[in-house]
Amino acid sequence: MARLVMKFGGTSVADIERIRNVARHVKREVDAGHDVAVVVSAMAGVTNQLVAWCRDAAPLHDAREYDAVVASGEQVTAGLLAITLEGMGVNARSWQGWQLPIHTDNAHGAARVLDVNGAELIRRFKEMKQTAVIAGFQGIHKETNRITTLGRGGSDTSAVAVAAAIGAERCDIYTDVDGVYTTDPRVAPKARRLDKIAFEEMLEMASLGAKVMHVRSIELGMVHNVRIFVRSSFEKPEDINPRANFTGTLICDEAEIVEQQVVTGIAFSKDEAQISVRSVPDRPGVAAAIFGPLAESNVNVDMIVQNVSPDGSTTDLTFTVPATDYERARITIEKAKGAIGYDRLDGATDVAKVSVIGIGMRSHAGVAAQAFKALAEQKINIRAITTSEIKFSVLIDAAHTDQAVRTLHTLYGLDKS
Amino acid sequence: MARLVMKFGGTSVADIERIRNVARHVKREVDAGHDVAVVVSAMAGVTNQLVAWCRDAAPLHDAREYDAVVASGEQVTAGLLAITLEGMGVNARSWQGWQLPIHTDNAHGAARVLDVNGAELIRRFKEMKQTAVIAGFQGIHKETNRITTLGRGGSDTSAVAVAAAIGAERCDIYTDVDGVYTTDPRVAPKARRLDKIAFEEMLEMASLGAKVMHVRSIELGMVHNVRIFVRSSFEKPEDINPRANFTGTLICDEAEIVEQQVVTGIAFSKDEAQISVRSVPDRPGVAAAIFGPLAESNVNVDMIVQNVSPDGSTTDLTFTVPATDYERARITIEKAKGAIGYDRLDGATDVAKVSVIGIGMRSHAGVAAQAFKALAEQKINIRAITTSEIKFSVLIDAAHTDQAVRTLHTLYGLDKS
Repeated sequence: MARLVMKFGGTSVADIERIRNVARHVKREVDAGHDVAVVVSAMAGVTNQLVAWCRDAAPLHDAREYDAVVASGEQVTAGLLAITLEGMGVNARSWQGWQLPIHTDNAHGAARVLDVNGAELIRRFKEMKQTAVIAGFQGIHKETNRITTLGRGGSDTSAVAVAAAIGAERCDIYTDVDGVYTTDPRVAPKARRLDKIAFEEMLEMASLGAKVMHVRSIELGMVHNVRIFVRSSFEKPEDINPRANFTGTLICDEAEIVEQQVVTGIAFSKDEAQISVRSVPDRPGVAAAIFGPLAESNVNVDMIVQNVSPDGSTTDLTFTVPATDYERARITIEKAKGAIGYDRLDGATDVAKVSVIGIGMRSHAGVAAQAFKALAEQKINIRAITTSEIKFSVLIDAAHTDQAVRTLHTLYGLDKS
Repeated sequence: MARLVMKFGGTSVADIERIRNVARHVKREVDAGHDVAVVVSAMAGVTNQLVAWCRDAAPLHDAREYDAVVASGEQVTAGLLAITLEGMGVNARSWQGWQLPIHTDNAHGAARVLDVNGAELIRRFKEMKQTAVIAGFQGIHKETNRITTLGRGGSDTSAVAVAAAIGAERCDIYTDVDGVYTTDPRVAPKARRLDKIAFEEMLEMASLGAKVMHVRSIELGMVHNVRIFVRSSFEKPEDINPRANFTGTLICDEAEIVEQQVVTGIAFSKDEAQISVRSVPDRPGVAAAIFGPLAESNVNVDMIVQNVSPDGSTTDLTFTVPATDYERARITIEKAKGAIGYDRLDGATDVAKVSVIGIGMRSHAGVAAQAFKALAEQKINIRAITTSEIKFSVLIDAAHTDQAVRTLHTLYGLDKS
C-alpha cells in the first residue's frame, strides 16, 4: 500500500488502444492497493503538429501563446486516460497543471517547476481512493495566471515533481527501453541492464548522451530523493506482479546501492566538434576573451583543455562544442581574433567523446590510467582528456568510437557473462 | 471608436491560412480604432476528432473529462490567432474560459454561462490597446474549478456573453452565409437578405430551422440587448470599410427597426413526424396521460392540436415530433394504451412544418387567414395549425413544402424585386 507515480510518454499513449494498455498498467497497481498518480505526455505526433502550427502562424511567436497551444496536447491525453480508467471501474480524474496547481517560473517554453500542491491528491487518495491523471509538461505561472511548458522531456520532470509533492515511494517512468544499460547495446552487444544506478551517475549518463531520461528530472529526483524506476511500457500489464520483483533500473541514492562498482557505465557522444586555438598569448583574461563571445553567441562549450605553456609566452587552447554549433563557434572566434590575438584556428568535426562513469572512482586511484593504456593498445589516439570526481572523458577520432566503447566496457568488467 | 466582439466559427479557422485571413479582419477593425475581443471556435474537424477519441475511450464517459478534452480545440485556435495577430503587429493575447473567467453552471457538455468578467479586458483596452482572443465554447465551474463546455453552437453564446460583459456596441458573427434571409434561398430563389430582424423574430426563425445562429445566443442577446450582426467570413478583409455600411443582418431590439414589416420571414422544417391518437376519452388528465410518458422517453413534442370534441365523449389528439423521435414516440404511446384508452394510432413521417414569422402580426389581424386561402388555392392541404403572438405554423405534406414556402413568401411581399 504505497503511493506511486507512473509516467507514460507519447508513444505509450499514441492512440486509444495504447491508452487502454496504459490504463491496464494503472489498474494493476490500483488493484494491488496502491495510491496512484499518473503523469502523461501528449499523444505521439500531436505536439509536433501543434508546434508546426505555431511556426506557420508566425516565425517569431510569443512563447506564452506557444505554451497555451502546445499544452493542449497533454490536456487531451489526461482526459482520455481518465475516461478509459473510469470505463474500467477505476475512480479517476484528470488534472491540468493550473488545476493542481503546478507552479513554475515564467520562462515560457522551458519553465522550471517551483512547487506542486499535492495536498488535494493525498486527500482524495485517503477519502475516495481516487487515482489522479495529471497532464505532464505543463504548469502555471502564479502571478500571470498563464500556462507554461517545461520544454523537452518535461513530463519526466512533472512526474518526479509530483512524486516529491505526494511523498511517493517510487516514480515509475515507463519508456521504450527496459532500463538503463551500462552502455548503448547497439554499440556494445555485451552491455547489460543495471539494476540500480546512483543519481549522480545517471546525471552524467544522461547529460553525456544516454537519452533515457531528461537531465532536469534526475536533478529534481536527487534533490528530493525521489526513487525513479525506469521500466518498459511494452511489457504486458498482465505479466507484471506489482508485489514481486520486476524488470528495470532504479535510480536512487548511492546509499541504497550496496555493491557499488568502480565503473557503472560508458557514455559517448558522436556529435562533437573540436576547435583548437593555436599560440594564444599566455596571459590573464585570454580565456575570457575566447569564451565570453562564445557564450554570447549561445555556443554550448563542453570540454576545455588548456596546457601549461611550454615557453611561458603562448599556449594552445582546445575546446569542444556540439557539431551543430561548430560553424557558429568558428565564426565567433574568427571575429574576436583581434581581441584574443591567436595565431591559427584548427578544427575537426569527426571527433567523439567517450566517458567512463562511476561513483566508485572517488575511492579508487588509477581508473583513468587503465583506460589510457587500453586505448593505446588499440592504437586509438586521445586528443584531449577531462576528468571530474566521478567520471573522465576522452576525445578521440569518431571512427574509433565503437571500438573504444567496447574496449572500455570490457576493461571495467561491465560485459554480461 | 467602439468596443466590438468578432466571432469566427470552425470553418473560418480551419487552417493557418484561414486564421491569417481572420487576423486581417481583426486588424482592420483595430486599425479603425476599435477595441476588439475576438471569440473563436476549434479548427474545423478538430472537435469531431476529440469527440471520437472520447467515445472510443469509453462508450459512457464522464462529461467532466469529455469537457476537458474537447475544450482543448478552442484553446489551440485562440493561441494560434493571438500569435498570428502579434505577427501582424497587433497587440493581442489569448484567454481561456478559466482565465477570464467565464463562469458557468456545472451542466457539463451543455453548460449555461452565469457571468463573464469583462473588467480585465476593458482595463487592457484602455491601458495597452490590447486585443483579446477568447476561446469560445468553454467556461469554468467556480466551485469545482473544472472546465465546462456549452454544447453545440456554444461559441456564439460565448461571443454574446462577452459582448454583454464589456458593453460592446455590436457582436459580429462571421459565418458562411452573409446574413439572415426571409427564407432559405435554395427553396425560394426570390428570398432576400434582411437588413434587420428583431430578437423575438430571430428566435422563432432559429428554433424553426433557420440554422444561422444558436437559439441560446439569441436569447442571451435579447436579455442583455446585445446587437448581433450576422455577416460573411468570405468577404475579403481588404474590401470592407469598417466605417461605412456593410453587408449582413443586424439582430436587434424591435425598437431599432423603423419600418417593421408584418411578416419578416418564412421558416420550415422537413424533419417532422405526426402522430394522431384517435378517439381519446374527452376527460381531464388525458393529455397528461399522453405527454407524461413522452417526456419521460425524452421525446421532443412540438405542435399539439386537440379539437373540441364533437360529441363530448371522445376526441382526436394530434402532435408532431422530430422524425428521429417518431418510432420511440409510437412505442411509448402504444405502451400507455391502457392508461390513455384510445381507439387507434395514426402516424405520418412525410410531413413538414411551415411557419410565418413577424412581430407586425401582433397588430395586424387576418394574417394567418390570408395564408390558409393562398395554400387552399394551391390545393395544399393543412393537417394542423398552431399559432402564437408573432408566428403561426401549418403542418402539410412534405411533398408540398417548397411550393408552400414560395407561395407564402410571395403572398407576404417578401420576394426581392
